[in-house]
Amino acid sequence: MKKPHAFVTGIAGFAGSWLAEELLASGFTVSGTLAPGEPTRNIRHLESGLRLITLDILDQKKCRRTIARLKPDYIFHLAAIASVGESFQKERLTFHINFDGTLNVLDAAREVRRLKALLFVSSPEVYGRFRPVNKTLKEDHPFAPISPYGISKAAAENACQYYFRQHRLPVLIARAFNHGGPRQSDSFAIPSFARQVAAIEAGKQRPIVKVGDLSARRDLSDVRDIVRGYRLAATRGKAGEVYQLCSGKTVPIKSVVADLVAMSSRKIRIQTDQSRLRKADIPVLRGSNRKATQRLGYTIRYSLKDTLADTLDYWRTELGATPGD
Amino acid sequence: MKKPHAFVTGIAGFAGSWLAEELLASGFTVSGTLAPGEPTRNIRHLESGLRLITLDILDQKKCRRTIARLKPDYIFHLAAIASVGESFQKERLTFHINFDGTLNVLDAAREVRRLKALLFVSSPEVYGRFRPVNKTLKEDHPFAPISPYGISKAAAENACQYYFRQHRLPVLIARAFNHGGPRQSDSFAIPSFARQVAAIEAGKQRPIVKVGDLSARRDLSDVRDIVRGYRLAATRGKAGEVYQLCSGKTVPIKSVVADLVAMSSRKIRIQTDQSRLRKADIPVLRGSNRKATQRLGYTIRYSLKDTLADTLDYWRTELGATPGD
Repeated sequence: MKKPHAFVTGIAGFAGSWLAEELLASGFTVSGTLAPGEPTRNIRHLESGLRLITLDILDQKKCRRTIARLKPDYIFHLAAIASVGESFQKERLTFHINFDGTLNVLDAAREVRRLKALLFVSSPEVYGRFRPVNKTLKEDHPFAPISPYGISKAAAENACQYYFRQHRLPVLIARAFNHGGPRQSDSFAIPSFARQVAAIEAGKQRPIVKVGDLSARRDLSDVRDIVRGYRLAATRGKAGEVYQLCSGKTVPIKSVVADLVAMSSRKIRIQTDQSRLRKADIPVLRGSNRKATQRLGYTIRYSLKDTLADTLDYWRTELGATPGD
Repeated sequence: MKKPHAFVTGIAGFAGSWLAEELLASGFTVSGTLAPGEPTRNIRHLESGLRLITLDILDQKKCRRTIARLKPDYIFHLAAIASVGESFQKERLTFHINFDGTLNVLDAAREVRRLKALLFVSSPEVYGRFRPVNKTLKEDHPFAPISPYGISKAAAENACQYYFRQHRLPVLIARAFNHGGPRQSDSFAIPSFARQVAAIEAGKQRPIVKVGDLSARRDLSDVRDIVRGYRLAATRGKAGEVYQLCSGKTVPIKSVVADLVAMSSRKIRIQTDQSRLRKADIPVLRGSNRKATQRLGYTIRYSLKDTLADTLDYWRTELGATPGD
């Protein structure tokens, strides 16, 4: 039997690179796109097994030609401005890449005759602020996005549902809650802490981890669980459906920092630096993974401790640190 | 005292032309934009009193330059693909004009130092389908848009609120429910019926009015009330707020046709032609105008009978019909 072919936009990104591994390990042929000039370090160890294409997702014609030529069985659309914080600095670009880029992929996908599924990766940022603050969010929670990132993802989700209803495109949506792991950019919270601990161990930083607002509670998953969820959603999910991928529990960000510091043998202080991180708009973010668990057989294999330890080890390697130093 | 200056995008459109009259009558200096090649017939009778600019709302630079040069006190952003039906035929253009066009206006407005208000015109299409079907909609009803038009307006509203919160831009939103009157394109229901009655009176059509799905109930207003609402929202409303403009009652579309036919002395049959109009996705659409009434002093001056009679007279003039013929 011919291997199924999966096409991943944003394949060299954090989640994209782990998804590529997940798909290769599950017997897929994998191709994917890089943004022009995007570094390939996240997928360097996989490169011989991947077909890589440089594609500006805003290039409507090339997007169409690329997908028409490859005729994938599955499309995983991950290419995006993926950071909420960055989206405040790059509003227009975020709207453009995350919304128009998705429309380009949707339009291109319409021309693939035997497409089995197009998975769109979204986020609980579409929900915005809500009451009560400690509510457990389910897939049917209404949209009220507040960040440019959330606004762009909400618009793109609405467009995905429209293409499903109007054009019978087999689109599925995964709403992935916060997730971490090796390779994540240190503009996100966990790697920013892990990188500092590793930098201290490598003698590149004084023994002080600088942190921003730690008052929030987040539903944290390992990226390797999340990308397995993407594969399961695309292969077992139902077109037109939305699946939340999350742990179902929250942890205080404060304890994430404490755990990372405790993983080091160094004596490290934690110091608040309000300029570092924007104030969390949403104090508690917790999802229900019941639908993904029941309908997709989604399970959680990595503990938060695994995620933090592996992330710290990644940054140790990056910075040439040794834990015992 | 210097007259306040109002800048209206889409000034030659249906609502735009009535808004221009409303603003002129209320003591404003009025300027406005036409799309390249757009006919000016709706505003020909006003042209000496207006400053008109041809502007492709997607031309970000020119949009910025135009607004920077005019320095209006008020901006009314009406330029849009305004027909839900048309939006299904022109998905990408609708997303582009209604969302990116609005972003262009928002960005340009940020550079007007003394801007008093930017009114964005939206629609209950942002709500999509809802339960129970006969619910009276209020401003806080969640978004779940289904048409490209509704998706584009929801995204644009979210962006408006973002610019208000993030950039302190004095944006207000008017969600106008269905409205009719002279000059409305006959791709909409009321003028399509009125035009046919006038065409029959002018001897240009057999005495049969062809209609589509008439099962829906709609909350119908006169365009002249609606544009007064736009003025009131901009001058009396509070930045960041949304005001629904509507009658608060619904009428069956069936009775609109019957009323128009009864206004003619001709014997006219009504015939269903399912190919004519798309099936109504939303069986009943009724809004509450309580907030606009209480906070803006919004009142309804035109009865549905006025609207229908004036619309019919408009089409009689257009087609050279005489009621008594």
